[in-house]
Amino acid sequence: MSRGRLEAFSDGVIAVVITIMVLNLRAPVGAGLHDLRPLVPKLSVYALSFVFLAIYWNNHHHLLQLVDHVSGAALWANAHLLFWLSLTPVAAEWLGPHLRNSTPVAVYGVVLLGSGVAFWILAHSLVAAHGPDSRIALAIGRDRKGNLSLVAYVLGIAIAPVLPALSIALYVAVAVAWFIPDRRVERVLSRPDGTSE
Amino acid sequence: MSRGRLEAFSDGVIAVVITIMVLNLRAPVGAGLHDLRPLVPKLSVYALSFVFLAIYWNNHHHLLQLVDHVSGAALWANAHLLFWLSLTPVAAEWLGPHLRNSTPVAVYGVVLLGSGVAFWILAHSLVAAHGPDSRIALAIGRDRKGNLSLVAYVLGIAIAPVLPALSIALYVAVAVAWFIPDRRVERVLSRPDGTSE
Amino acid sequence: MSRGRLEAFSDGVIAVVITIMVLNLRAPVGAGLHDLRPLVPKLSVYALSFVFLAIYWNNHHHLLQLVDHVSGAALWANAHLLFWLSLTPVAAEWLGPHLRNSTPVAVYGVVLLGSGVAFWILAHSLVAAHGPDSRIALAIGRDRKGNLSLVAYVLGIAIAPVLPALSIALYVAVAVAWFIPDRRVERVLSRPDGTSE
Amino acid sequence: MSRGRLEAFSDGVIAVVITIMVLNLRAPVGAGLHDLRPLVPKLSVYALSFVFLAIYWNNHHHLLQLVDHVSGAALWANAHLLFWLSLTPVAAEWLGPHLRNSTPVAVYGVVLLGSGVAFWILAHSLVAAHGPDSRIALAIGRDRKGNLSLVAYVLGIAIAPVLPALSIALYVAVAVAWFIPDRRVERVLSRPDGTSE
Repeated sequence: MSRGRLEAFSDGVIAVVITIMVLNLRAPVGAGLHDLRPLVPKLSVYALSFVFLAIYWNNHHHLLQLVDHVSGAALWANAHLLFWLSLTPVAAEWLGPHLRNSTPVAVYGVVLLGSGVAFWILAHSLVAAHGPDSRIALAIGRDRKGNLSLVAYVLGIAIAPVLPALSIALYVAVAVAWFIPDRRVERVLSRPDGTSE
Repeated sequence: MSRGRLEAFSDGVIAVVITIMVLNLRAPVGAGLHDLRPLVPKLSVYALSFVFLAIYWNNHHHLLQLVDHVSGAALWANAHLLFWLSLTPVAAEWLGPHLRNSTPVAVYGVVLLGSGVAFWILAHSLVAAHGPDSRIALAIGRDRKGNLSLVAYVLGIAIAPVLPALSIALYVAVAVAWFIPDRRVERVLSRPDGTSE
Repeated sequence: MSRGRLEAFSDGVIAVVITIMVLNLRAPVGAGLHDLRPLVPKLSVYALSFVFLAIYWNNHHHLLQLVDHVSGAALWANAHLLFWLSLTPVAAEWLGPHLRNSTPVAVYGVVLLGSGVAFWILAHSLVAAHGPDSRIALAIGRDRKGNLSLVAYVLGIAIAPVLPALSIALYVAVAVAWFIPDRRVERVLSRPDGTSE
Repeated sequence: MSRGRLEAFSDGVIAVVITIMVLNLRAPVGAGLHDLRPLVPKLSVYALSFVFLAIYWNNHHHLLQLVDHVSGAALWANAHLLFWLSLTPVAAEWLGPHLRNSTPVAVYGVVLLGSGVAFWILAHSLVAAHGPDSRIALAIGRDRKGNLSLVAYVLGIAIAPVLPALSIALYVAVAVAWFIPDRRVERVLSRPDGTSE
């Protein structure tokens, strides 16, 4: 099956998810500068969630560049990833006004963890379909950064009942760590024997 | 007429439909764990509807891979399918808090039935345009799974006034049955004389 | 300039416009069959608007198939068309519960007229850029159906203060007339000297 | 990295941003002509914002036509631009009913300025990756129109506390100035040694 339409559909879903998040930022009723204050935490959570979704889009893009064909299992692994990503807006909407409350902070982490695990499943289903010597298997490798992110999310969820501020710091740290696109993939793509798109 | 833009437009509509459904999941006002409870049935209905839409996207993708050209009639058959799929969010919004009520359960089934019938019309209009010996005619064949799904939807609607829980069980059963991409299409696509995209 | 990205962007906008219209169909609060009654006129207006937008998508698709290059003026003519189409949801939202009220019926006609005029401008700016002997000039020709539609919209708006029901009948008649894709374009595309995409 | 998927993703986000702005135009409750009056300022702000987003889409399109490859830094510069553009709907929602209030007028200018700066960063990161003799470097050149726009936005923000009407006049003037697609790019593209797409 062609990967083009899978990319187009995933792009569409991520583009809509990223954009409808902005619907949570309702304009204030009043027209003064102080009316903007309640928007500040919502805007911060929006920016963080935007970065997370952009990271997934980037990594998804990199991942599929290494793929020749997409199996039926990978289609569902991809839909599973999109399902978790589509929960980001409601988790962000809840977190916005409740940055110091344990449950919204933990639930936001659960959505991050679900998305991370779903990406892991997608990557490994693609590796499984292409074999251990494929370009994608080399590029994914041991995936230390991905695994450490999952650990950070689990820690963030576990810490949230006690120290929600530290959970948020962990989430931000993961976003910063992923800010730079995946060097491993770029390394493989730029090899003499690797044909980049 | 080219099939590429038809696919792109359908992908766009399905991607938006799948994503705006998440707007029904409003974040709770309170910040406690128990505030999440009313979200649970809504989230279940969202997951079920997400799976249905992903199934349609998968099957739509498979179907159009077998097509060389798209007639004017098929364009309208496709728009008709998108119309029914676009009613999924409002049917899901109504079903979410009313899982035990006959009318919302029946109405959800009507939308499923409408989508199923529309897919049947689209598939058969494509078969009609390509002839009985075309790859698509072979792939669709007698379409037992599709016809059984329609029967299940009709049963679900008929049972809803008496046993809405059984109706929902029927809908879930259809989703599970379609979870696996259409083997018939894959079989034809992998034949020596079949040129897959 | 390439026409591909223009098509993709227009598809995206139309797909989102067509889908957010469904947000007007809020699920009823109650769970009985009679709770569905207020949805019936809204659903009818949604179906009519869906058909209009699908017609524009079809005709847009046909139109651009005949185009080799897109000028800067055509880009803005296209944006102008998308602007009018994007007003369809709010006009439909107002018309839904006010099918017998003059102003909402007239305003809906104004949006139809604006879209029709914008399509006319786009088509003629493309004809102007390709010359009077181009395939697109032949296909558009005198454009009797397009011009008659504009007349019908003007009549509908003029009649609305007196007989809104007749205005709606006029709008429906135009939709039915355009239901069939543009034969003129298909005729030119299938000519021996015409290279269809 | 291929530029195609970057274009598709950006198109998707801009298409959704442009369309969800229309959600701010809620249909009036009443059905009279005077019920439309509160919509007039909102519609004006919607039209202005639509033009700004269409300008960005046009210029983005022109810019990427000159690009051979997209670096990781440019991906993030592009995401940064999309972030600012995605704030347009909420800034427009606030401005709509508050056209004479200093803070909403200034905040709208901040979103315009942020988008302008983000476009500047994207353009210059692409120039940096392609070298000073590349087509894109020639096309961007000293970018007088872009720089003047940023100055106009800063002036608009600074003037807003005193004369918000003048700020809005400045924003409108910038929109008018950019209405015509970038001649510099078209000049380079049409050179004998420039291969247009």
